[in-house]
Amino acid sequence: MNQAQSSGSTPELLYLLHGDPHELAETVAHMRAADVAEAVARLSASAAAKVVAALPFDLAVQVLEEPESRQDRADILSRIPGETAGALIDAMSPDEQADLLRDITGEERTRLLRRLSPGTRKALKLLLSYAPETAGGIMTTEFVAVPDTWTAGRTLEHIAKVGRGKETVYAIYVLDETSGRLVHVVSLRDLTMADPRVGVLELGDRRAPLTVTPATDREDVARLISKYDLLAVPVIDEAGRVLGIVTVDDVIDAMVREQTEDVHKFGAVQALEAPYMDVSYIRMVQKRGVWLVLLFLGGMLTASVMGAFETEIENTVVLALFIPLIISSGGNTGSQATSLIIRAMALREIGAGDWWRVGLREMPAALTLGSILGVMGVLRILVWHYAGWYDYGPHHMLIAFTIGTALVGVVTFGSFVGSMLPFLLRRLGFDPASASAPFVATLVDVTGIAIYFSVAAILLRGTLL
Amino acid sequence: MNQAQSSGSTPELLYLLHGDPHELAETVAHMRAADVAEAVARLSASAAAKVVAALPFDLAVQVLEEPESRQDRADILSRIPGETAGALIDAMSPDEQADLLRDITGEERTRLLRRLSPGTRKALKLLLSYAPETAGGIMTTEFVAVPDTWTAGRTLEHIAKVGRGKETVYAIYVLDETSGRLVHVVSLRDLTMADPRVGVLELGDRRAPLTVTPATDREDVARLISKYDLLAVPVIDEAGRVLGIVTVDDVIDAMVREQTEDVHKFGAVQALEAPYMDVSYIRMVQKRGVWLVLLFLGGMLTASVMGAFETEIENTVVLALFIPLIISSGGNTGSQATSLIIRAMALREIGAGDWWRVGLREMPAALTLGSILGVMGVLRILVWHYAGWYDYGPHHMLIAFTIGTALVGVVTFGSFVGSMLPFLLRRLGFDPASASAPFVATLVDVTGIAIYFSVAAILLRGTLL
Repeated sequence: MNQAQSSGSTPELLYLLHGDPHELAETVAHMRAADVAEAVARLSASAAAKVVAALPFDLAVQVLEEPESRQDRADILSRIPGETAGALIDAMSPDEQADLLRDITGEERTRLLRRLSPGTRKALKLLLSYAPETAGGIMTTEFVAVPDTWTAGRTLEHIAKVGRGKETVYAIYVLDETSGRLVHVVSLRDLTMADPRVGVLELGDRRAPLTVTPATDREDVARLISKYDLLAVPVIDEAGRVLGIVTVDDVIDAMVREQTEDVHKFGAVQALEAPYMDVSYIRMVQKRGVWLVLLFLGGMLTASVMGAFETEIENTVVLALFIPLIISSGGNTGSQATSLIIRAMALREIGAGDWWRVGLREMPAALTLGSILGVMGVLRILVWHYAGWYDYGPHHMLIAFTIGTALVGVVTFGSFVGSMLPFLLRRLGFDPASASAPFVATLVDVTGIAIYFSVAAILLRGTLL
Repeated sequence: MNQAQSSGSTPELLYLLHGDPHELAETVAHMRAADVAEAVARLSASAAAKVVAALPFDLAVQVLEEPESRQDRADILSRIPGETAGALIDAMSPDEQADLLRDITGEERTRLLRRLSPGTRKALKLLLSYAPETAGGIMTTEFVAVPDTWTAGRTLEHIAKVGRGKETVYAIYVLDETSGRLVHVVSLRDLTMADPRVGVLELGDRRAPLTVTPATDREDVARLISKYDLLAVPVIDEAGRVLGIVTVDDVIDAMVREQTEDVHKFGAVQALEAPYMDVSYIRMVQKRGVWLVLLFLGGMLTASVMGAFETEIENTVVLALFIPLIISSGGNTGSQATSLIIRAMALREIGAGDWWRVGLREMPAALTLGSILGVMGVLRILVWHYAGWYDYGPHHMLIAFTIGTALVGVVTFGSFVGSMLPFLLRRLGFDPASASAPFVATLVDVTGIAIYFSVAAILLRGTLL
């Protein structure tokens, strides 16, 4: 695989930096922008700035546009002389410019903005007005649009002329000549295969084009592009005019970032924005500590709940032995349910109003799973007892029955909590993906102990308790 | 959003099926293949077969090619008369044909294969020889290739002629005229912007094309396409000839499927292949039960380990009160570490050989996190004691110190297990993503109890124990 080669190039870049600049330029000429960006990302900010400044201009722009540079580029650009930095930013595509300027605040931002051309500043003002997780926030304003009166041939000539500066030329947006409204989309494929004299309106799919609004969620844009196999989707305003486009590349980058965030969240870590190996020790502890401390505070309730049942534990120590097994069974079932629901929500298979439908599906499944584990729990005690591995005393049947019943209750409850939590979080305005496995487990731990000892109190009253 | 409309179309499709077939045809003419597929996926197999058979031929083929149909298409095609079914399959793209035939076995497969054209059968034989999670398994053999002696103009004419039947025409593969080896790739964009008299070798990027082999992992193909913003990547054999291409659409579909699998796995569920709401009750219980039962069997060890410390628990019931808090803190830290490592492995940020580097990063972070929680645990006991909410007796300092020390140990150990488990699983030939949060929690539960009571045995000997 070609990727393997790139890892070795970091020291090489650094070495070349101290040598002949022409040699550096020659080496990187053979490298792809993504590989240079990857190598640069491993350098310190000051070394990275030196390398970027030494690169051929076009390559430097491409490197800064790569997702690998996203983390450091504001820092890198602030170390490059203002004029050069301004020219580099000016040459970047509008969506990347907006992304960059979101990371820069205060004086630095004003300083950089002043270096940009008036056209760039105006485009940026529009893009920066949208939230970064929306279509408006990830779109680019560099697309090809032609009037609906043009022919295929004239459109192709136009593309040949202006195509170089556009993010994509594979989708061409056909606008109503007077109102500027989007009326049609043709693909470069259709154009290439058409008679040059045919009007662009005659080509391609006759259905109204698929569009999104600037406020459409980034994930919904990704779903649309993926579902209909699009190369780009236009973002239109209320009057139907094209504000920009989101391309499949942007969507893939967004998907990868989103996926990382979701996995981290489900593991109860605040999403790391940089590769695992590049995150500083302090940052790593912060990102993990917040959730661990919150979960610990929640988990303290288990000690309080257990304290309430101290007499029962003193009287029947054997009950304490099964606490970890019982509460973790609840936590496991809960984590399962949560992961299923979070994913189904992310894929829009289920919506906010489906909670009762999910509840109706979960209940029988949970009861069945609880019964299976309950029977296993009963068998565990009886087998150990009759095999002589452990003496559960004269009331072993009652103990086994208590454990079994508690398991059914805890597993059913865990599944209920795990499946409903994402809905509750969404209702409260949080990301459903924040319902992490440890969060669910902690919730179920507390209630699981209460369920367990309540079942015990009822079943063992008068015998063991 | 346009997707919202599609949900309403299922009853409509069913209704139209019983009415005038022309009416059905007219309705679906306005629908996109992905929407029809989504609606069809909600029908029973026999109703779906009727709808597909009633669709215009080209649309029926497209519907069968949609990812939404993947689950049911084998079933649907088996209910359509052999000749029609054969023609539909024949018209599908080779990658989808291969995917379909993988789901069909035995007699049915032989029956269907016999209906296909000899050309299709030959192409299928090649594709089916590759594993489904490799580049060979998801590639299509329909791409545009031209000899290296052609000009841009001649290539464009060729595309206009043959383009209709190709999966993509945006990347054109330039082959050495004598050996058939891939020497260059040009984009339709480059061709459109070029002088028609220029040779294709003069256009576009002069670097050797990015390629993969048929055995390249599907996820690595996705990473390559996403990293270098490609629209397709060629799959080449040892002699450098192009066997097929993988397009960005295929990669997005694969990413969505992979992502779902990973989320489900991390939640300790076997990946559901169908939407949450469509999975049958039996299947749902199976998919979840397997892991729950295995985890329960593992969790049983907690009862045995606790049994070994029964005397300690009897003597100091207060120790039992903190068991859930301590072991869940270990489980939480472990789940965090696992989610970070799994994701970093999936992104190839870290490889199999990086386990010691990860260990070196995890240890200080884990010790810090453990110390934070340890101090909180000590405070919890002392505050409760001095506030008079709970009487920890004369040895409250010692108890607090025991809990604190155990927390440091369990959290550090949890982080160690959580970060190393994905490496171990990979070494053993399993998917690292199988290191689910509940799996880690169960592992840490068992050892956490042992750590806790060992610390207690050492610190409390002679006083409380």
